[in-house]
Amino acid sequence: MKRAVHPIEAESYRILRAEADTTGLPRHTRDVVERIIHTTADPGWRDDLVTDEGALVAGAAALAGGAALVTDVTMVAAGVTAYPATCLVAAPEAADLARTAGPTDPADPTRETGLTRSAAGIRLAAGRHPDGAVWVIGNAPTALAELIRLAEAGTVRPALVIGLPVGYVGAAESKAALRRTALPQLSNRSARGGAAVAAAAVNALLYGDPLA
Amino acid sequence: MKRAVHPIEAESYRILRAEADTTGLPRHTRDVVERIIHTTADPGWRDDLVTDEGALVAGAAALAGGAALVTDVTMVAAGVTAYPATCLVAAPEAADLARTAGPTDPADPTRETGLTRSAAGIRLAAGRHPDGAVWVIGNAPTALAELIRLAEAGTVRPALVIGLPVGYVGAAESKAALRRTALPQLSNRSARGGAAVAAAAVNALLYGDPLA
Repeated sequence: MKRAVHPIEAESYRILRAEADTTGLPRHTRDVVERIIHTTADPGWRDDLVTDEGALVAGAAALAGGAALVTDVTMVAAGVTAYPATCLVAAPEAADLARTAGPTDPADPTRETGLTRSAAGIRLAAGRHPDGAVWVIGNAPTALAELIRLAEAGTVRPALVIGLPVGYVGAAESKAALRRTALPQLSNRSARGGAAVAAAAVNALLYGDPLA
Repeated sequence: MKRAVHPIEAESYRILRAEADTTGLPRHTRDVVERIIHTTADPGWRDDLVTDEGALVAGAAALAGGAALVTDVTMVAAGVTAYPATCLVAAPEAADLARTAGPTDPADPTRETGLTRSAAGIRLAAGRHPDGAVWVIGNAPTALAELIRLAEAGTVRPALVIGLPVGYVGAAESKAALRRTALPQLSNRSARGGAAVAAAAVNALLYGDPLA
């Protein structure tokens, strides 16, 4: 079913295409880059994102097929209004797990030094959705580090990892660590990121080009 | 009750204070500027925000006294985990109102040209919380325009308006319109903004300085 596009959204896309040249990008890459710029009003995202068209194709296909969508924080889930998401950060089992396990070091995902609640939520979700889910990390570097650790251990096999955590502590490092893996992925180079940006990437895969 | 500060948050604040000079800012202004930079990993926010310490003092006092907190979108509410928020964008009455009323023109808040659902949610909430609420617009310029219109008409008397909508269409203009009013307010000059930034401003008023 074709989504109704609000006139404000259409106008925004016309303005952003005048501000950032996205012609020449492959289809899903362009959709993701444009929706993130639309969401942030910041054309600087074009050159900060690290995209792989094949990975985005796989992610879009997974969502079209009804795959599970897992997020690290509820703000990401709240930003994806057209698709149900699983977010276990607030589950009582995540709190228990965070108390009893040690966190993952973002600089060395194989090293456990305690577990944040976001990371515990990811570990819990991995048990429920080991195969073919789309994983979206929009806040916590520790959650991305935990997801990388689980994937490298063969515990979880994502269709796509959207790795866009934000912050001065570990975010850029966790995204660099993601890029060192062979996981199908989207990330960015800087410490910037966040729930709105991560949700925008998912929405781009769900909605495509609003002016098409 | 003193909030427990995670070591990652404390480390982030030490890093941001090395990146952005916030000494010399009054207390609540500094709290807001710092938490937004902490949330976005973008020190550029310091010079983009337009702050008024007296307004922020009033907003913090309102929240300390249990005032209603109203947001334009659920993502803002999801970003404020320590305080209950009202968000009526998804209420069936908002959909009805958006269908039957005309929206507000962001460039001229007195002119109705149809009503977006975000703006309809604000109009509904104004009926429930006419006095002393803290109003947070983190997404929709049309919601901010509607709030300004209601306040100028004397229908609603906010303790504080946090006006940080984002986007190429009407966001900068709606924030400029807010600054032309006498409303107690926080805003920024650019088209940037968003739910994470708006939620961070509220959290700053709730949490204060995590290193104090």
